[in-house]
Amino acid sequence: MDMEKVNSMGFREFVDVFGNIIEKCPLVAAAVWSQRPFSDLQDLENHFFAFIDALPRSGQEGILRCHPDLAGRDLQQGTLTAESQREQSQAGLTSLDADDRLRLQQLNARYRERFGFPFVLAARLSDRDAVPRELARRLHCQPESELRTALGEVKKIGHLRLADLLGADPARVEPPR
Amino acid sequence: MDMEKVNSMGFREFVDVFGNIIEKCPLVAAAVWSQRPFSDLQDLENHFFAFIDALPRSGQEGILRCHPDLAGRDLQQGTLTAESQREQSQAGLTSLDADDRLRLQQLNARYRERFGFPFVLAARLSDRDAVPRELARRLHCQPESELRTALGEVKKIGHLRLADLLGADPARVEPPR
Repeated sequence: MDMEKVNSMGFREFVDVFGNIIEKCPLVAAAVWSQRPFSDLQDLENHFFAFIDALPRSGQEGILRCHPDLAGRDLQQGTLTAESQREQSQAGLTSLDADDRLRLQQLNARYRERFGFPFVLAARLSDRDAVPRELARRLHCQPESELRTALGEVKKIGHLRLADLLGADPARVEPPR
Repeated sequence: MDMEKVNSMGFREFVDVFGNIIEKCPLVAAAVWSQRPFSDLQDLENHFFAFIDALPRSGQEGILRCHPDLAGRDLQQGTLTAESQREQSQAGLTSLDADDRLRLQQLNARYRERFGFPFVLAARLSDRDAVPRELARRLHCQPESELRTALGEVKKIGHLRLADLLGADPARVEPPR
């Protein structure tokens, strides 16, 4: 898909295609459509991230709260979005044994309790051994810095999903700061 | 459901219950959870509406773009949310004859083309005769005032959905301005 195609889309098609760049937040894509035309993938991505950055803190927390736990309820119940299912599967989280799954669920619950949003991580850049280690580490971070870290992960996820849709090599697009 | 129950909810449950108060925008409920505890239904409602009012214009347009057409594609394909299905059904929009449906689809298309968002109306407060009349009238409004009108309809829809969930008589809650 090239940018000419993207810029020709009506809002219905745009939201159908890009509605899950930010997990379960089609509002973001629907807002970004107002900013067309886009000069390139980086420009399109920047508009997604600028929308998130401009939200009040409650809205940024809200974006995080729309994300599923890793190896959590939605994975067990088969109610993950297609993108999340693929990402958690690539990280090996769909084939944990019962002990590892339980440990991750306990860590997720502690994290949610501490921060008021779920642990968000770009699973495709991690793996089944690194996920619980990183979760245990971030559990001890300060809430302010942890919010920034988690939003950075949202952007890494969005970056990879956009690169998938536009057939780009993710490494050739400047990664989110 | 009483406010004590609402205020006791974790964010997962809160988003499960209130995620579609604003059509297909669970982000709004997920953000509103940050504002708990809520003193009463009016207070809860005010937080939903304040979040919308504080969005940049692109975000407000984005909220509108997450709404389905009345008697449109999603109704034909059976992909409406449960709430929208009920509301469009109550307005008689699920049993239009082919001519009326075609006329409404043509008006919807002209409206989307003019304003860059779909025609949004609290269908439960309208009926199958009034909907195309109101759509034809609003087609001639100025974009600035039409955005305000459309967001007012989003709030009426949210008001009725909240009253449903909390078992309140909608007429006893101050209607959205």
